[in-house]
Amino acid sequence: MTQLKDAMATTAREVERVMDFLLPKADDAEARVFQAMRYSSLGGGKRLRPFIVAQSAKMFAVDERCALRVGAAVEFLHCYSLIHDDLPAMDDSALRRGRPSCHKKFDEATAILAGDGLQALAFEVLAAEETSSDAFVRSELVAGLANAAGGEGMVGGQMIDLLAEDHELDIGAITRMQRMKTGAIFAFAATAGAIMGHASERHIHALHSFAQELGLAFQIADDLLDEVGDSNTTGKPVGQDGAAGKATFVSILGVERARSQARLLAEQAARTLDLFGERADLLKQVAAYVVDRTH
Amino acid sequence: MTQLKDAMATTAREVERVMDFLLPKADDAEARVFQAMRYSSLGGGKRLRPFIVAQSAKMFAVDERCALRVGAAVEFLHCYSLIHDDLPAMDDSALRRGRPSCHKKFDEATAILAGDGLQALAFEVLAAEETSSDAFVRSELVAGLANAAGGEGMVGGQMIDLLAEDHELDIGAITRMQRMKTGAIFAFAATAGAIMGHASERHIHALHSFAQELGLAFQIADDLLDEVGDSNTTGKPVGQDGAAGKATFVSILGVERARSQARLLAEQAARTLDLFGERADLLKQVAAYVVDRTH
Repeated sequence: MTQLKDAMATTAREVERVMDFLLPKADDAEARVFQAMRYSSLGGGKRLRPFIVAQSAKMFAVDERCALRVGAAVEFLHCYSLIHDDLPAMDDSALRRGRPSCHKKFDEATAILAGDGLQALAFEVLAAEETSSDAFVRSELVAGLANAAGGEGMVGGQMIDLLAEDHELDIGAITRMQRMKTGAIFAFAATAGAIMGHASERHIHALHSFAQELGLAFQIADDLLDEVGDSNTTGKPVGQDGAAGKATFVSILGVERARSQARLLAEQAARTLDLFGERADLLKQVAAYVVDRTH
Repeated sequence: MTQLKDAMATTAREVERVMDFLLPKADDAEARVFQAMRYSSLGGGKRLRPFIVAQSAKMFAVDERCALRVGAAVEFLHCYSLIHDDLPAMDDSALRRGRPSCHKKFDEATAILAGDGLQALAFEVLAAEETSSDAFVRSELVAGLANAAGGEGMVGGQMIDLLAEDHELDIGAITRMQRMKTGAIFAFAATAGAIMGHASERHIHALHSFAQELGLAFQIADDLLDEVGDSNTTGKPVGQDGAAGKATFVSILGVERARSQARLLAEQAARTLDLFGERADLLKQVAAYVVDRTH
């Protein structure tokens, strides 16, 4: 795991630099929304999605600077979703990555606008010539991220998750919800490098399957951390889903079966990358990493 | 004006049909967010921005179906901004287009998600091959709308507008704020047809200037309606800016000077289109229309 952790730390550092460069920083009257966008996207996070973009891009010999821009765009999209999810009307979380959430640090209106601005920025970055000299690639990336982020992806999944406080979901419904809420963005991250590298349909499909399994494994691990984790390590409150009366993988399967299910999914995810040989070693290790992480 | 009103009504009908086709309508667990997206974007509005896209596209012989898709994307973006602007943490408006605003009809969480989903949908539509067979055009459209919508455009303008409750703005600051908040999206709408039609820089520049003047004229007319209008006609509460202690064009200039300023801007806007000859007649009439409208 040392090799993986070093590689993740390197990508996290590099994508942070690119994000800092891409985020607006003018000192004009609107500066408050830029401060909130920067507060909620810089200086934290494992940068797992950018790492997946970077590794997928590396397999197809894509220019690293282009991959980091796409990684930054995915992370902006992810950070916008965290800001909005934390709002009082949504999950009402006061803490994020061990710091006050955006609406606690600023205010609700600024947090709504900062999320909106980060979503627009994600698409602006993808559509810029610096991200790919191939306009077809740029528009494929935009179409892919927009689809993953919208009503049939992340936004739809979050809607189902909110409604789950009143309607108990079974394991099939939770799986579908998580595929939409987190899986779709993972799938975009994993296939983005392949799209940039003009990979074959077969390769894109393998990376898509990998991300689907990885996303579910990641989510079960998240539910386990919420159930048995420590808020000092996770940097956010624990036990929230149970308190909200929401069914989760853990509440349905129990802790032990959820753990073995997460490991099984991680192994399946890794196997879908066998066709890439050694090139995919770090991505395979990511699968093991997401189920063993403590935060 | 009869010719203009007929043409606007025709475009409004056609763009409504395209929007209805593009909006998700699945009956799955996430259906509530689709209902909210449809509620807040269908069945109302003058569709001024799609009309400007359609007219600008017509001048450059762009396929009308493509123009209507771009018009729908701009309108989705506009409707998302109205949903979020109406939220309790923002302008706290209970009424929109004569009906309950989105968070009143549904709830705050659903309204936040519906806005987020509409923003993603706008970019998804622009990036789709059906919108333009030219990938470079698609990515230019995405880059243009994202820039107009983000922190340096609409979101930044809305931030300044919110802060204006505590910091009184002068006429220069209000002009800058309105150029960002509404002008940038008008400018995108006016230049989108030119981008689709591979127009010259000179033509794109003229349309951009037109939209900047038009946007300001539109905003002054909006302030006048807020000051002296009738909520039965406007379909939204009046007198809100004054009540919030916000400086507006009208509070600074007074009703009469604001009226003549709006007319002057509308005339300037029309003149920037002289180089297009008769082709621009309807767009020129739009400028007069926005200052004379009663809702």
